[in-house]
Amino acid sequence: MIEIECHIIIKRNGISFLDAVKTELLEEIIKCGSLSSASKNLKISYQHAWNMIDLMNRVASEPLVNLSRGGANGGGAIITLYGKKTLKEFKLIEAEINKRVDQINVEINL
Amino acid sequence: MIEIECHIIIKRNGISFLDAVKTELLEEIIKCGSLSSASKNLKISYQHAWNMIDLMNRVASEPLVNLSRGGANGGGAIITLYGKKTLKEFKLIEAEINKRVDQINVEINL
Repeated sequence: MIEIECHIIIKRNGISFLDAVKTELLEEIIKCGSLSSASKNLKISYQHAWNMIDLMNRVASEPLVNLSRGGANGGGAIITLYGKKTLKEFKLIEAEINKRVDQINVEINL
Repeated sequence: MIEIECHIIIKRNGISFLDAVKTELLEEIIKCGSLSSASKNLKISYQHAWNMIDLMNRVASEPLVNLSRGGANGGGAIITLYGKKTLKEFKLIEAEINKRVDQINVEINL
């Protein structure tokens, strides 16, 4: 079976700061409230997760996650209001694009 | 400025065989008629280009490019009718999806 898939990226001033992998990390942070637990659940290193958040926060117009290093749980991670808004917008955009993708998948002839 | 970008992948039985990078390689092969020249123009190694074509040909229901190894020009590469059809379909799908992406980019509020 042939089908198309669409990967969405949100950019600011030409630099990517949000994609499917990073939204998954944001969702996991909302669930866990800690970057350490979120990275464990996603089977990625704490440093990799930290770098992703750091990049998002630097590229976006305001931080998406407030990070605090150290402590017994390896530091806290709290998603900001802007982070929640951006995540919601990403999901809406993804659903909108996927509606069109689903229509095309019905018509595809390869 | 915030904007979204969409990367399209075509899959067969769940395995990806065509994306923007591979379509660029197909277009370059049409221009050059040789994998060696195509890979040079795209600044990728001959082996990497060969592997991409090999994967496409194995995953798709029929070959997209006929490759012949050896010879003075490092072997010939001829796109098949199915390769041309698939490339055309990819471009049409990309244009369709990008119409929707452009509409969303006007509405985006982040």
